Amino acid sequence: MRTAGKEPKYVRLANLLEDIIRNCSFRPGDRVPSVRQFSSQHGVSIPTALQAYVTLETRGLIEARPRSGYYVRARQADFLPDPSSAAVGLRTTNFTQTYPIQSVLLSEESAKLIPLGAALPGPDLLPGIKLARTMSAIGRRLGAASVSYDPLQGSGKLREVLARRSLEWGCALKASDFTITSGATEAMSLALRSTCQPGDTVIVESPTYWGLVHMLRELRLKAWPVPVDSVTGMDLDYLEKGLRRLRASACVLIPSFHNPVGFLMPDENKRRLVEMLAGRTIPVIEDDIYGDLQHKGARPRCLKAFDTDGSVLLCSSFSKTLAPGYRVGYIAAGRWQSKVHRLKAGSTLSCATLPVLAVAEFLKTGGYDRYLRTVRQAYREQVEQMREAIVEMFPAGIALSRPQGGFLLWCQLPAKVDSIKLSEQARSAGISVAPGPLFSPYGGCRNYIRVNCGHRLTPQIERGLAVLGKLVRKMILK
Amino acid sequence: MRTAGKEPKYVRLANLLEDIIRNCSFRPGDRVPSVRQFSSQHGVSIPTALQAYVTLETRGLIEARPRSGYYVRARQADFLPDPSSAAVGLRTTNFTQTYPIQSVLLSEESAKLIPLGAALPGPDLLPGIKLARTMSAIGRRLGAASVSYDPLQGSGKLREVLARRSLEWGCALKASDFTITSGATEAMSLALRSTCQPGDTVIVESPTYWGLVHMLRELRLKAWPVPVDSVTGMDLDYLEKGLRRLRASACVLIPSFHNPVGFLMPDENKRRLVEMLAGRTIPVIEDDIYGDLQHKGARPRCLKAFDTDGSVLLCSSFSKTLAPGYRVGYIAAGRWQSKVHRLKAGSTLSCATLPVLAVAEFLKTGGYDRYLRTVRQAYREQVEQMREAIVEMFPAGIALSRPQGGFLLWCQLPAKVDSIKLSEQARSAGISVAPGPLFSPYGGCRNYIRVNCGHRLTPQIERGLAVLGKLVRKMILK
Repeated sequence: MRTAGKEPKYVRLANLLEDIIRNCSFRPGDRVPSVRQFSSQHGVSIPTALQAYVTLETRGLIEARPRSGYYVRARQADFLPDPSSAAVGLRTTNFTQTYPIQSVLLSEESAKLIPLGAALPGPDLLPGIKLARTMSAIGRRLGAASVSYDPLQGSGKLREVLARRSLEWGCALKASDFTITSGATEAMSLALRSTCQPGDTVIVESPTYWGLVHMLRELRLKAWPVPVDSVTGMDLDYLEKGLRRLRASACVLIPSFHNPVGFLMPDENKRRLVEMLAGRTIPVIEDDIYGDLQHKGARPRCLKAFDTDGSVLLCSSFSKTLAPGYRVGYIAAGRWQSKVHRLKAGSTLSCATLPVLAVAEFLKTGGYDRYLRTVRQAYREQVEQMREAIVEMFPAGIALSRPQGGFLLWCQLPAKVDSIKLSEQARSAGISVAPGPLFSPYGGCRNYIRVNCGHRLTPQIERGLAVLGKLVRKMILK
Repeated sequence: MRTAGKEPKYVRLANLLEDIIRNCSFRPGDRVPSVRQFSSQHGVSIPTALQAYVTLETRGLIEARPRSGYYVRARQADFLPDPSSAAVGLRTTNFTQTYPIQSVLLSEESAKLIPLGAALPGPDLLPGIKLARTMSAIGRRLGAASVSYDPLQGSGKLREVLARRSLEWGCALKASDFTITSGATEAMSLALRSTCQPGDTVIVESPTYWGLVHMLRELRLKAWPVPVDSVTGMDLDYLEKGLRRLRASACVLIPSFHNPVGFLMPDENKRRLVEMLAGRTIPVIEDDIYGDLQHKGARPRCLKAFDTDGSVLLCSSFSKTLAPGYRVGYIAAGRWQSKVHRLKAGSTLSCATLPVLAVAEFLKTGGYDRYLRTVRQAYREQVEQMREAIVEMFPAGIALSRPQGGFLLWCQLPAKVDSIKLSEQARSAGISVAPGPLFSPYGGCRNYIRVNCGHRLTPQIERGLAVLGKLVRKMILK
């Protein structure tokens, strides 16, 4: 049984009002129903209705005019096209070129840049202090035992909470189905190493998470890039046709709030994909790291929810939701679980005990659910604000993704822009941004960038965007 | 510059007295110099001299007889032979058989057994509470930032302390030479993956750490087992001859306080090995995880101290000294560092931030050095006591290693004993013990076991040993 998103009443009302505005052809400048009308139509108190209106105002969708009421605001970003999905010929990629991963990545130096690059939540949104306090309390309680090894499979405490949560994902997993890992990175690496041999071909979305592209290269795997639609994800007709001619050892997807594009694959596509690949005994590796971060409504189902024979390996972590630096991830590896355990024993052996136990306790005591309600709302607003800011500060001719969850934007720039050069110039100007080719399994996406919206839109970040906009303008004029 | 072991005065005196007793042919029952004589001969106070005598008494080397003085005690273990090193024909091993790693390993269930199996320090010896307190304080200080990612290379704070400590290992490494890893397991895995391709051959000690055997199997590497001497380690003449006929991509050693045999490779052998392999451009992977745990004297030099061209990859961690469950290890990978970084980015990305910072602070404030002085002494005594207990409770015809550091014993049982069966029977009786074949790169060592002496010799552990001794006896009689 799936529980509905437990958002506060006014947020559900705000979402409803937003749907009404979007679907009933309200245009910028149109007056929307008054607070009083809305409250009586929906049987809620006036203060609650007002809270909903203020929420939509924060999202930039409506504006109050003194003594007149609420009007639809002109949001320039609403008129932008979605980024186009580059056509990809049927091919596999042998990686030859190496991009400077460290520039986007976690060097001590890049922590000082304006953070539009790495996919990082703003630390002020993360429950750092609460978690650290939880961890201290566990440390005191366990005393000397707090330095002991976590078991190879990972603490049963966390696996039990995950099993309970899996109902919300449309699954019904047991604690014994899970293995705890050092972040989703280890989960994905174990999944790929369990299902593939060097030289094998892996089906991937194009574009996809740069870390996956990097991983395939280091594991000497070939990529078969399948184009994605910016709303529904992987093009399944294209995939089905391709499967008549190409063989693959695994298929990796980020179906819910994709990195970098932000789409949510519809349930019927998820089902079709899992059935299509199960019929050909191709295991599916699912990266669900943004799955808890929907901007509204219910938590999406996992691909794993449609798995009938253990052929989906579900990978995720709490790095995008709770604590990047705790390195607490997990895999439900289905038929590959014992292979995953053998590989983990030879890769990291076990995870850091106290962070695992702290996350387990935070989840168990309901802290996580309370926190998610806040953060879903915050990311939704930050993404909207960032979209508006980009439209304002960048030249015409761009396209922007409309993510339905998470905190990333995929931005198509005019064809003349070389995003690798752009990111180098930005770096010199003190700004980190992730260039498109990092996300392309075949070195494409030259004129795309990914923009992190994990941080609040501070004046510093606005300044960074303005500089970025100027750099883009300069490249076009050249 | 290497600093001498900063042991308390009475411990240095006790070691001196032990050397005198051992080297001047004192026999069991002989009277040793009186406390008064010893104090005047060495210019120390009587209370200090007495403390030294009491220390030797705890070690079981001498005993006090009322109104008569101190006498050499009959220590049966002193008359035991060293375990013999099985002759190994020149060959490489393709692993086929899989041993049940989980039984020795870290299943939640095995935590309930009498702990003679896994190489684990007793939690009462580890500074668990102090470390947890340090981590809490850092968590409070960092606040929200405490959940941020550790950089890919690992916190500069820990790398700086390691650079300073490397002087004690006979090296002069810079902070930038180190990369922090999830325990020594990740360090070793990254080292092997950086230097070898699947199908390559790796030179290993025979026997060696079971985790390495497991890792080679999972990475599809072949092993070339080289026999070890129980005192001086790898047989270098054998190796040199073999190198004329066999090719290898790397050589892995645990030169200081080897697991499972306990030897300390002499400096001249270390130098000869590094030069021999550098001349053939074969990288050396050094596992130094027990290096800080000498039973007396100075901290041994690393193989890395003899490295002139960056061909030694030094791997280690704090899992055997401070905190198994913190997963804080490191690698100084020499020429392979950038490859190690690329692989780490695709394996775990980064380590858990707070445990890394806690270890850094513990090292920086001198807590680690104070702690090492206690623990070196404790392991020395625990190993001696375990040797005596084994001699007492096991049938005749066994041989026992004389480790010079660490807390492991390698025990050769009568030829009729099958240690795999023995460990299964022990498990049913509630005792964990590690069977020899786990440590053999070619499935040998059938009649060997490794015994963990990380815990104090409690009545519970004595009971476990007694049961184990009975099981051995039964196998011989069959």
